[in-house]
Amino acid sequence: MSINFEISATSGRARRGKLTTPHGTINSPFFMTVGTLAAVKGLTPQMLRDCGAEIVLANTYHLALRPGDELVKQFGGVSKFMGWHGPMLTDSGGFQVYSLADINKITDEGVKFRSHIDGSELFLTPEKSVQIQQNLGADMFMAFDECPPGDSDYDTVAKSIERTARWAKRSKDAWTNRENQSLFGIIQGGTFDELRRRSAESIIELDFPGNAIGGVSVGEAPEEIDRIVEYTTKLMPQEKPRYLMGVGRPQDILRAVGHGVDMFDCVMPTRHARHAEAFTMDGKVKLRNLKQRESDAPIEEGCDCYACRTVSRGYLRHLFIAGEMLGPIYAAIHNVRFYLRLLEKARIAIEEDRYESFATEAINRMEVPN
Amino acid sequence: MSINFEISATSGRARRGKLTTPHGTINSPFFMTVGTLAAVKGLTPQMLRDCGAEIVLANTYHLALRPGDELVKQFGGVSKFMGWHGPMLTDSGGFQVYSLADINKITDEGVKFRSHIDGSELFLTPEKSVQIQQNLGADMFMAFDECPPGDSDYDTVAKSIERTARWAKRSKDAWTNRENQSLFGIIQGGTFDELRRRSAESIIELDFPGNAIGGVSVGEAPEEIDRIVEYTTKLMPQEKPRYLMGVGRPQDILRAVGHGVDMFDCVMPTRHARHAEAFTMDGKVKLRNLKQRESDAPIEEGCDCYACRTVSRGYLRHLFIAGEMLGPIYAAIHNVRFYLRLLEKARIAIEEDRYESFATEAINRMEVPN
Repeated sequence: MSINFEISATSGRARRGKLTTPHGTINSPFFMTVGTLAAVKGLTPQMLRDCGAEIVLANTYHLALRPGDELVKQFGGVSKFMGWHGPMLTDSGGFQVYSLADINKITDEGVKFRSHIDGSELFLTPEKSVQIQQNLGADMFMAFDECPPGDSDYDTVAKSIERTARWAKRSKDAWTNRENQSLFGIIQGGTFDELRRRSAESIIELDFPGNAIGGVSVGEAPEEIDRIVEYTTKLMPQEKPRYLMGVGRPQDILRAVGHGVDMFDCVMPTRHARHAEAFTMDGKVKLRNLKQRESDAPIEEGCDCYACRTVSRGYLRHLFIAGEMLGPIYAAIHNVRFYLRLLEKARIAIEEDRYESFATEAINRMEVPN
Repeated sequence: MSINFEISATSGRARRGKLTTPHGTINSPFFMTVGTLAAVKGLTPQMLRDCGAEIVLANTYHLALRPGDELVKQFGGVSKFMGWHGPMLTDSGGFQVYSLADINKITDEGVKFRSHIDGSELFLTPEKSVQIQQNLGADMFMAFDECPPGDSDYDTVAKSIERTARWAKRSKDAWTNRENQSLFGIIQGGTFDELRRRSAESIIELDFPGNAIGGVSVGEAPEEIDRIVEYTTKLMPQEKPRYLMGVGRPQDILRAVGHGVDMFDCVMPTRHARHAEAFTMDGKVKLRNLKQRESDAPIEEGCDCYACRTVSRGYLRHLFIAGEMLGPIYAAIHNVRFYLRLLEKARIAIEEDRYESFATEAINRMEVPN
């Protein structure tokens, strides 16, 4: 198995560790910045490293459509292609197929859908997803799962977790590049504890190098997210990395770290940056707001990111109002740094065995409207 | 006078020098990257420094409209506002008024026009332009001139240079911040030698800290540009910096350096970057071109820019096809570095007194279609 996970400290159920991959070691718990098309929007690999990034995530669905996984393979894999050269993870493409594409038919064989770019008909199966992800060559990759809509009823989700289990087995069977790439299984089950339990059992039984929780943050209330994560993490093996997919808000991440989750990803830092919203420990700041016009303050006092060290809120407002590319770039630098620094603080709090008080205080502070 | 210009070497008529400003020293001849709205499109100050930039230009017309020069002044001037903190130059706003705005009326008093953003009516005079530029606070700034269309006849241009002379005098009279800002006069005269001579005399007589050649590269043939620049530079004082405004193509810059021009600016490196065109010593490269699809080569072999050290043409093509912001960013890094490196090579060639052979060889190489 090509990843190695070691836990060096715990605080309550929160874990501080190191995940070693063929492309380098990542301090956990960690956040993966999303580089959908083998590019984090507006940030070069150098800027990502300056923000403290140790790993990047890329999206299989998008890369399979453009520029195509075979081409990425020719360039030596996605990490080399984008000039990152560090650890990476790819998702299975499943989530994007269900959320972006025009689904024609889901059968036990796989999913027939139309590309959101040119409408061409495509067919994705567990075997095909694994093959594409092996071409992309990330250190970690995901089994192909079914993601039923967030409001699906019990019977629908119950059927779906059985298919997800069968697809997980087929993904594992199709996985050949075991030397360099580690496959993660995904636990589904919606908001139903019983189904989460059954799904967890079927996935854990397959003994993947790591396990993920999928189908969370698809429209539930924050309390529901917390409840599902708490319940599901308790079913997952201690010694393997736990990945909560696509979550999300800083508060949700802090709560999940408290339940022993090690890995996160979300488009929020870069997407919000493009919409002129910056994260701070005191909540979000709208950079287009008129009240920023004359502000000589940085986005966040005490932040060590390049944007906060270089420019004011007033200047950033000017960039957004004028439609300058540098607006989203600076905001992305800050937001990515904010997420990565939040996880840095979480790791220190775990090491010092004061995670619960740290997280409670941070969550309360963030949730005060500013 | 707040700038100091020293020539340390010559090669033919080409000059190698240092221009010292309140915000730092610039090696000449030099190219100024254009940061229209107090932002070079896609490049942070750190990226500009990494490209070797020693000075940035900003546009008075654009900044006066957004965010307004009074606001920029509140932030301590344009260089501090954008987090550059180094030497800067602003233009007078004249060129943009004539090329972008909807002109209502030009009188001897000034120019009445409508903003290209919201159609509001504005009135720009020499005094007003100086006042705005003093609020922007750049180390060097430009007298307000009249820029007749490139195809204007002799009589029109003859009248125009008289107005430009009167406006230059009024600009100088309005200039109060002489400690920190140096005003440059602008020589006009179209493609008519006689009018260039008369305009040069009237401007030089006013004894500005530096002199510029305006109204070039507004549609003439490259040979015409070269002829006007050669003729006009011979009329300009040796001991003061000479600035050829808005020019332009790398070949035109190299020819002008050979005629003793010290300062250049142009939007070409960043504008072409946004259109997926990269400059190389062997001509321009179209990064969207299908032939780049599988290319593992950098934009330009031997280039030391961050883009060439990090990513391939094939990856850049992918970014442009997918509409990723990083495409224009990487191309801008390369193009800006290309221009700055070209001037670095020119400076070395002057120091080694082999400028003519250097420039001839470089121009021939660039003009071979690739």
